[in-house]
Amino acid sequence: MVEEAASLDALKDLRPLGQLHDSFIIAAGRDGLWLIDQHVAHERILFEQVLRASESNQAERQSLLLPIILPLTPAQDAEYPRIAEELERMGFEIEPFGQRTLAVKAAPAGIAAGEIERVLFEVLEIADQELRKATIDEIRRGVAATVACRAAIKINMPLDMVKMQWLLAELAKCELPMSCPHGRPIALRYSLREILRSFHRI
Amino acid sequence: MVEEAASLDALKDLRPLGQLHDSFIIAAGRDGLWLIDQHVAHERILFEQVLRASESNQAERQSLLLPIILPLTPAQDAEYPRIAEELERMGFEIEPFGQRTLAVKAAPAGIAAGEIERVLFEVLEIADQELRKATIDEIRRGVAATVACRAAIKINMPLDMVKMQWLLAELAKCELPMSCPHGRPIALRYSLREILRSFHRI
Repeated sequence: MVEEAASLDALKDLRPLGQLHDSFIIAAGRDGLWLIDQHVAHERILFEQVLRASESNQAERQSLLLPIILPLTPAQDAEYPRIAEELERMGFEIEPFGQRTLAVKAAPAGIAAGEIERVLFEVLEIADQELRKATIDEIRRGVAATVACRAAIKINMPLDMVKMQWLLAELAKCELPMSCPHGRPIALRYSLREILRSFHRI
Repeated sequence: MVEEAASLDALKDLRPLGQLHDSFIIAAGRDGLWLIDQHVAHERILFEQVLRASESNQAERQSLLLPIILPLTPAQDAEYPRIAEELERMGFEIEPFGQRTLAVKAAPAGIAAGEIERVLFEVLEIADQELRKATIDEIRRGVAATVACRAAIKINMPLDMVKMQWLLAELAKCELPMSCPHGRPIALRYSLREILRSFHRI
C-alpha cells in the first residue's frame, strides 16, 4: 500500500522518452521505468472527465449537421427513457423520431463524428442486456466508459513529445490512474531495484 | 537459440530513447523494449577491441609526460616477465627501473591518465594470484578485461543521444554482445509479446 502510494507520487514527475510500437509510452520515473498503454490511459482520463461533466451538467457538445437516425429494438425502446437523462447530461441531444426511432442532433465533443453512431449502439446494447438490473450509477458509468473508450486515442498511433507529456500529466491528475474503467492495467512498472538486481548491481 | 539469434539481429536496429538514472540506456527494438547497462556494454566493446589490437599488434598508445614508478612484490617481480609481452601488445611501454620496480612510459590510449596506475595494479594482482596456473590466453583475457573495465564509461553519467547511438552501434558489432567479460548481463529485454500480455492485449 505504501509502495502503491509512492508509485502514484512518482507518476507526477514521469519523463516521457518515446513510444514502443506506436502504442506504449516509455517513461523514466524516479522509481524506475514505466510503460503506459496510451489507449487505456486516455480512456481513464476521458472516463473521469465525462463523469465529472455529467455530474455538474457541463458537458461540451458538438452539433451534428445532419441528425443521425437510430432504429431501436423493442427492448431498447422500452428501456430508453431510463438512460435518456444520462445521455443528455453527457452531451447528447436526442429526440424521438417516429416509432421506435431516435434522432441524434448533438453528441459529446470528444467523440469523432464517425464514431457517434457506434457509441450509441454500444450504449443501447448495454441498455438491452443489463438495464433492467442496473442502478442509475451503473448505467452512468457504463455510458461514460463507452464514450471514453470510443473517444480515446488508439494504439498504433504515433504521438509527439508534447502529446505524451500532456497524456502523462492528465493521467497524474486522475483519481484512479492505474487501471482503465474496464479494469485493464494502464501502466507497467519496472522498479529501479528490480533492474539493478537483474543487472547484478545489488 | 532461434530466439537468441533473432535478438542479436534486433540489436542492430535499436533506437535509443534516453537514459534511466543516467546509467541504463532505454531503447526500442523491433522485438520489444531493451535496457542496456552503459558501463558493461562499453566494457564489452573495449574488451574485444583491446584483444583484437593485441592480436594484431596495433594498439593505440598514449605517452606519459612523467613515467609512473611501480614497486613490485617479490611474487609479482618473479612473474612479471610472463605478462610483459602481453602488456606491450596492449599498448603499455614499461621498462625495469632498479630493483623490483617498473617505470611505465606509455599506456593504452583508452585509459584516463588517472586510471593507469590502478589498471596496472589490478593486472599485477591477477599476476600475483593466478599467474602460475594461468595459460597465456587466460592472462591475455584477464589483462584485456581489466583495461576495458577501467577505461569504460561509468554508470551515473549522462550521455547524449549521439553517444548512446554510438554505443549501441558498437555493441551490435561485438562477437558476444550480451554479457560482459566478467559474465554480467549487458541487456535486459522485455519482449513485445510479454508486454502485450501484461496489458491484457493478447
